[in-house]
Amino acid sequence: MSTHPVLIAGQWRPSQSTGTFRVENPATGQPLPGEYPVSSWADCDAALTAATAAAATLRTLPASQIAAFLNRFADRIDARKAEIVELTHAETGLPKAPRLGEVELPRTTNQLRQAAAAALEGSWALPTIDPKLNIRSVLGPVGPVVVFGPNNFPYAYSGAAGGDFAAAIAAGNPVIAKGHPLHAGTTRLLAEEAFAAVGETGLPPATVQLLHRVEPETGLRLVSDPRTGGVGFTGSRSAGVKLKNAADAVGKPFYAELSSINPVLILPGALTERGAKVAEEFAGSAMLGGGQFCTNPGLIILLAGDTATQFAADVRQRFEAGNPPVLLSSGLVRSLSEGVAALRAAGAELITGGSPLPAPGCRFANTLLRVTGDQFLAAPEKLQTEMFGTASLLVVVRDAAQAAAVLGHLEGNLTGSFYSSTTGADDALYAVLEPLLRTKVGRLLNDKMPTGVAVSPAMNHGGPFPATGHAGFTAVGIPASLRRFAALECYDNVRAARLPASLRDKNPNGAMWRLIDGRFTQADVGA
Amino acid sequence: MSTHPVLIAGQWRPSQSTGTFRVENPATGQPLPGEYPVSSWADCDAALTAATAAAATLRTLPASQIAAFLNRFADRIDARKAEIVELTHAETGLPKAPRLGEVELPRTTNQLRQAAAAALEGSWALPTIDPKLNIRSVLGPVGPVVVFGPNNFPYAYSGAAGGDFAAAIAAGNPVIAKGHPLHAGTTRLLAEEAFAAVGETGLPPATVQLLHRVEPETGLRLVSDPRTGGVGFTGSRSAGVKLKNAADAVGKPFYAELSSINPVLILPGALTERGAKVAEEFAGSAMLGGGQFCTNPGLIILLAGDTATQFAADVRQRFEAGNPPVLLSSGLVRSLSEGVAALRAAGAELITGGSPLPAPGCRFANTLLRVTGDQFLAAPEKLQTEMFGTASLLVVVRDAAQAAAVLGHLEGNLTGSFYSSTTGADDALYAVLEPLLRTKVGRLLNDKMPTGVAVSPAMNHGGPFPATGHAGFTAVGIPASLRRFAALECYDNVRAARLPASLRDKNPNGAMWRLIDGRFTQADVGA
Repeated sequence: MSTHPVLIAGQWRPSQSTGTFRVENPATGQPLPGEYPVSSWADCDAALTAATAAAATLRTLPASQIAAFLNRFADRIDARKAEIVELTHAETGLPKAPRLGEVELPRTTNQLRQAAAAALEGSWALPTIDPKLNIRSVLGPVGPVVVFGPNNFPYAYSGAAGGDFAAAIAAGNPVIAKGHPLHAGTTRLLAEEAFAAVGETGLPPATVQLLHRVEPETGLRLVSDPRTGGVGFTGSRSAGVKLKNAADAVGKPFYAELSSINPVLILPGALTERGAKVAEEFAGSAMLGGGQFCTNPGLIILLAGDTATQFAADVRQRFEAGNPPVLLSSGLVRSLSEGVAALRAAGAELITGGSPLPAPGCRFANTLLRVTGDQFLAAPEKLQTEMFGTASLLVVVRDAAQAAAVLGHLEGNLTGSFYSSTTGADDALYAVLEPLLRTKVGRLLNDKMPTGVAVSPAMNHGGPFPATGHAGFTAVGIPASLRRFAALECYDNVRAARLPASLRDKNPNGAMWRLIDGRFTQADVGA
Repeated sequence: MSTHPVLIAGQWRPSQSTGTFRVENPATGQPLPGEYPVSSWADCDAALTAATAAAATLRTLPASQIAAFLNRFADRIDARKAEIVELTHAETGLPKAPRLGEVELPRTTNQLRQAAAAALEGSWALPTIDPKLNIRSVLGPVGPVVVFGPNNFPYAYSGAAGGDFAAAIAAGNPVIAKGHPLHAGTTRLLAEEAFAAVGETGLPPATVQLLHRVEPETGLRLVSDPRTGGVGFTGSRSAGVKLKNAADAVGKPFYAELSSINPVLILPGALTERGAKVAEEFAGSAMLGGGQFCTNPGLIILLAGDTATQFAADVRQRFEAGNPPVLLSSGLVRSLSEGVAALRAAGAELITGGSPLPAPGCRFANTLLRVTGDQFLAAPEKLQTEMFGTASLLVVVRDAAQAAAVLGHLEGNLTGSFYSSTTGADDALYAVLEPLLRTKVGRLLNDKMPTGVAVSPAMNHGGPFPATGHAGFTAVGIPASLRRFAALECYDNVRAARLPASLRDKNPNGAMWRLIDGRFTQADVGA
């Protein structure tokens, strides 16, 4: 059987591998054609050397050339869409429509094009000029970025095409993509298109490289190598924390999206006013994509009472009526079983679901559990175990004080939501609880479930640890996401002709916003 | 003998201490009056609890109140200047004038006032609004910030008054100051004025707290406590790395300034054109403040030849004519001796100095060492040992290729400087070497020594590890330095009345720059 190559130093070449793996169709349990290599350190070493050279060249190229690449890559993905979607569906079980072809793929090409526009315009880098002292600074590329893509978004977070990829490239860095083994073929097709676009737009060949898989020890070495500039990681908390520790120890910026259970507080007035509608919204959000979203609402906090009891019954009915889709892998079914068991062991009562569903396909029953506030406070850590899938825990608290105590025990999360009465009945309670939730989450929502992550300049797809590795940054939302893969570069008394274009007196494109003498302006210095 | 109190939870109170220490006058070797406590974990625990409550209140206060505090604190330092300078001089041996009274103290109050202005104006937080989707985000306070002040700048980097303090407070966070034991009295006086200003401006009493010293294990616990929001550290690499690892492990942002030898490349054309003048500039910079500056030029790279030989002779003459001042402590004299020994063991030839000077006072001879490029490349790590004081290493390289090789082995630094001919004779060499130095340093200089760190919005006092912990941020330069102590807070569909002032449709002060629909503007949303 043929083993697919890796993309290193501008060549699709055989991996110096330590083994191979195959991708399984989760709907049938059957392996798909082709084998993929597990790269040895020799592959990583070669990729790092090539990326270092590419990084040096990329620094010298105009932003317009990087933007041209991102746009061309997006066009090429669109042109090959049917083939890509077909393979991804086979690898992941995700529906071809609307999910893959109509939602995630267009979102991904949109991100690439937004990143292209941001690179071209240049304001993302916060160029800052002190004309009197002739000190000038701007964010510049950080060096080769290793991007680990997750299992759940084969396009939008792909190491070879997703948000971290787009941000790292737009900031002027080459990317070493580490694909996810569950959809190796998808990442291969994306990398093929990226590499073709690299050639068409004249970027250094090693601007995009691809490794399909590495052993854990090799990964630790990769992220902490002196040649590595930074890392983007989306994946499991256990793997991510190990990689983060390795990168941190040598001062490499590591942006990780690790874990989030996305608490939702449904205040009593909202339940009274529109409990059935909120139950519908919650169930829809929890079941979306089989619950395999980073922002899946996993923890619902309710104040005890008839309306809370009714809410649980409504959700149960919807969960039981729902038809669980095929999950990404049999591993997810196992980890869901383990998660449910961990919560039950910590005192959670099973309302519905809790078990795998029979073949064909990797599936798991929609699952709802419940604890009291007292139970939660007795085992807050175990009861925050992330269950990746449609499996949520209701925490029914006694009163506002107990709700506050529960919030005080929450770990960092990507999102936190409040549903409240439209008539002001919950306003006093909101005022008490909001500050407690605000500091635990990156994105605070009102009257809205967290599963939609708009690609907006104002989006924050980030949050306090362990949701991510640094609460000051977002993985989604351009231009801010670009700033993760950058270092602040100051020029003190540097002669005019030696300055980067963004810091010269003349605004290089007339569109870039620069902070000159403390004011944001698109004008030239002295104008 | 009386033991000074600590400042915890709005009270100057006796420390629950594990021991005491005294401050020694480095000019006389005699201990100064009074003992200071080494705080136990009980002190830290109490400070963290109080800071947590203060942080919650600070979030609710208008920026104008925080700005009023910073301004009032600056005024109070000015008013007590004579007494503060007198005590600092006794504790540190630093000259009362110009250094302490005319340079560092005014710089410090200037920083506090600039931070006040930035807090009031609000643009530092990058408020970003997507009106169509009603998603809005802004940097918000990260929570209690622990600031470790260094030995060498008793005001400008003080945990209770310096740049990290000003930035953390301006970003809306309470500060737990960890003073430096070598100038405990100075920090005490500064904290007294800060606390008085807290009272006068109605901030929560625990907005400023002070611990004089903690045992290393207690420090690790302090920076990694769940209540800690972030850390600012300026000090030794060995202590800083341990603290950084502890903070990183639990995802606490840790901004450290650890180590820098500030390479200076003097290109051949500059030596031919103005070698004697460059030698004068270098010697002046190296001897400034006894060389006890983070940006002290410790590594000079020259191309072999007569002009390089003459440069070394010129510097030697100036170093030998200089009168080394009293250093901050006897410990620095010891560590300078150790540093020189380490470099000599790695092959460096001693040109002048190399030894402590006789009493009275802790002093060390101005020291110059030399290696060839070959020698440097044989032991690049050992030859980058930081020597804190006036002690620099000349690296005399064979040619441009060897200069490039030396740059390739440099660790991250705060600064890197080029001196080059004004006639263009060095331009080709600059073009080759600049990209290699650029990615190793935070601030790149032309024709200028690195010891001046202007408080400019465009300054970068930061750099790749191990210069600092994160190359994306600066410790000096407002508004950028404020962004270190902040978390990105997104509001998605949040009702208008519940938004923070900076994200409402109406610009709260008409002066704040906000990114609305992708454009920086001071206008209201929809205007």
